[in-house]
Amino acid sequence: MNKLQNDLFIKACKKEKIERTPIWIMRQAGRYLPEYRKVRENADFLTMCKTPELASEVTIQPIDIIGVDAAIIFSDILVIPEAMGMHLEMYEGKGPVFPSPIRTEEDANSLKEIDPVTDLKYVMDAVSMTKRELNGRVPLIGFSGSPWTLLTYMVEGGGSKSFSNVKKMIFNNPSLAHKILDRLSSAISVYLSAKIEAGANAVQIFDTWGGILAQDDYQEFSLQYVEKIISNIKRVDEPVIYFPKGVHANLEKVAKCGADVLGLDWTMDLGEVRKVVGDKVALQGNMDPTVLYGNEDIIKERALKTMKSYGNGSGHIFNLGHGILPDVPPANAKTLVDFVKENSSQFHI
Amino acid sequence: MNKLQNDLFIKACKKEKIERTPIWIMRQAGRYLPEYRKVRENADFLTMCKTPELASEVTIQPIDIIGVDAAIIFSDILVIPEAMGMHLEMYEGKGPVFPSPIRTEEDANSLKEIDPVTDLKYVMDAVSMTKRELNGRVPLIGFSGSPWTLLTYMVEGGGSKSFSNVKKMIFNNPSLAHKILDRLSSAISVYLSAKIEAGANAVQIFDTWGGILAQDDYQEFSLQYVEKIISNIKRVDEPVIYFPKGVHANLEKVAKCGADVLGLDWTMDLGEVRKVVGDKVALQGNMDPTVLYGNEDIIKERALKTMKSYGNGSGHIFNLGHGILPDVPPANAKTLVDFVKENSSQFHI
Repeated sequence: MNKLQNDLFIKACKKEKIERTPIWIMRQAGRYLPEYRKVRENADFLTMCKTPELASEVTIQPIDIIGVDAAIIFSDILVIPEAMGMHLEMYEGKGPVFPSPIRTEEDANSLKEIDPVTDLKYVMDAVSMTKRELNGRVPLIGFSGSPWTLLTYMVEGGGSKSFSNVKKMIFNNPSLAHKILDRLSSAISVYLSAKIEAGANAVQIFDTWGGILAQDDYQEFSLQYVEKIISNIKRVDEPVIYFPKGVHANLEKVAKCGADVLGLDWTMDLGEVRKVVGDKVALQGNMDPTVLYGNEDIIKERALKTMKSYGNGSGHIFNLGHGILPDVPPANAKTLVDFVKENSSQFHI
Repeated sequence: MNKLQNDLFIKACKKEKIERTPIWIMRQAGRYLPEYRKVRENADFLTMCKTPELASEVTIQPIDIIGVDAAIIFSDILVIPEAMGMHLEMYEGKGPVFPSPIRTEEDANSLKEIDPVTDLKYVMDAVSMTKRELNGRVPLIGFSGSPWTLLTYMVEGGGSKSFSNVKKMIFNNPSLAHKILDRLSSAISVYLSAKIEAGANAVQIFDTWGGILAQDDYQEFSLQYVEKIISNIKRVDEPVIYFPKGVHANLEKVAKCGADVLGLDWTMDLGEVRKVVGDKVALQGNMDPTVLYGNEDIIKERALKTMKSYGNGSGHIFNLGHGILPDVPPANAKTLVDFVKENSSQFHI
């Protein structure tokens, strides 16, 4: 194992004292970078995921170009359902599509039992290759979707405004939903453990669609599975980040899910949430991603505001409140990263 | 003026003591009703809005068919920008599109000054005709979009996932955004006053996109304009409902906007919000609209849960947390309405 030269991110996850706030950006290995688009020209999205050399190359790009304090392995949350046998189509700009979504018991029975260690070996290879190439420069984050978020994609088959199909399932056939969620939870537990085994220094669980559920439904169909996964993950001291986008209620309870870090979207107030969750977890986030459309002054003003909102002391990992948008100028992302690096020490005195 | 035979809705808005909880459903005059689709067969959406006879007919349908306690005039929030000169295309199922969105000062200058009383006379005619035909059976609700929500549509030109264009405007040219928001606020104030003058017994302001803003941005670009409008509306004692979908923070402050009623989406807990806002406002909502995909047992269970969540006493208007979905069976909506009517008196002892 290479010792980390920059371990600010890991220390912040553990709320250890550090000299400045670390920053990384969700979707930092992505379309806003010309260097990414160049790789993407010669390989489709899934090929990139499945080719460790390419995944590794784009994972490392933002470390060199933008200067973030952590790398996140280039991959997609839908590789798990894809490994379970669901044909996945990725259209740039349109979002992923499963042409044959899972709606019935029969559909669910057609899903293959997987062993993520072997069936998603290409992810583990990408992680270990990237880890080797990073050579300790910054920590490497592995990730997964939450069971609920994966179920939503698998049942809807694509983007949705009302999420009618997955809601029909939880209201009319909750036991089927739970059956699939259980299978996903087992797979995700093994998957994230294997990523850590392969070299990931931390893992993040994306619960992109947790916020479309009423509060008790969120508890029943999402949070309880996240709790199980977190308790199942085999780790020494690798932090777990849980990002329940759009979930704003009962954060005190959410913060007890076992994660070391709670990711917040941009509609939350870091300071208020910090008060609510106390010392239980570190917080990650949460500048509005569209601020990066703004000029330098706005970006700096809002970045400072975000840090002030969290306030003094360790336990804040700077990030956007959602993924960086594909049409953001890379220079603006760099402005943000430089500013946070240069102006966050005042919060760590 | 005809005296209202059923004034439960109005009394609930004012938190007066009543014998049971009133119910109406957002988008109750809509595509889920075969009777609506029949009218729609012979007229496009905008023609229906602009033809008082047709608007009136579909407005009254759910009173007869579903048995709700209030009517809401059939119209669309985008008739204001349309009257300002923006060409509006409505595609069923796809959502509204402005092919020439407002992005620059020049675009904004091209917007016509309107007098809603004359330029939107067709709405006022629809209101007064419907009022006459309702003949006091139930109250009639008029509505508008909030300035922010209208601006979002006008700048994006259609649906959006990231709302990049309107966010670019508020970050890079906030004064232009404020200029348009000011104009919209004046027009909406006159518009809602005219609807009341024409016979509306209450008005609702839909802030569908308030929730995409960070908290201070919501205050600056949405809430302050809503407050202005509410203080400007000419009314005797007609209640104002404010529905800030997706807004979950600072509800104590939001509740002070001057509205009599706060509408809540399904991710909120009525009981918790009631505790936060105290006696300041009545609450409207907020069952997950997708529950109406469920069977009779689920619908009743969730309806009861919603009422229990609000608890005892007046000040709750039952509604969904968002509009009824077009593929919901009308019988399910009727099941809900009947159940609330028959089982809510226990909360009014």
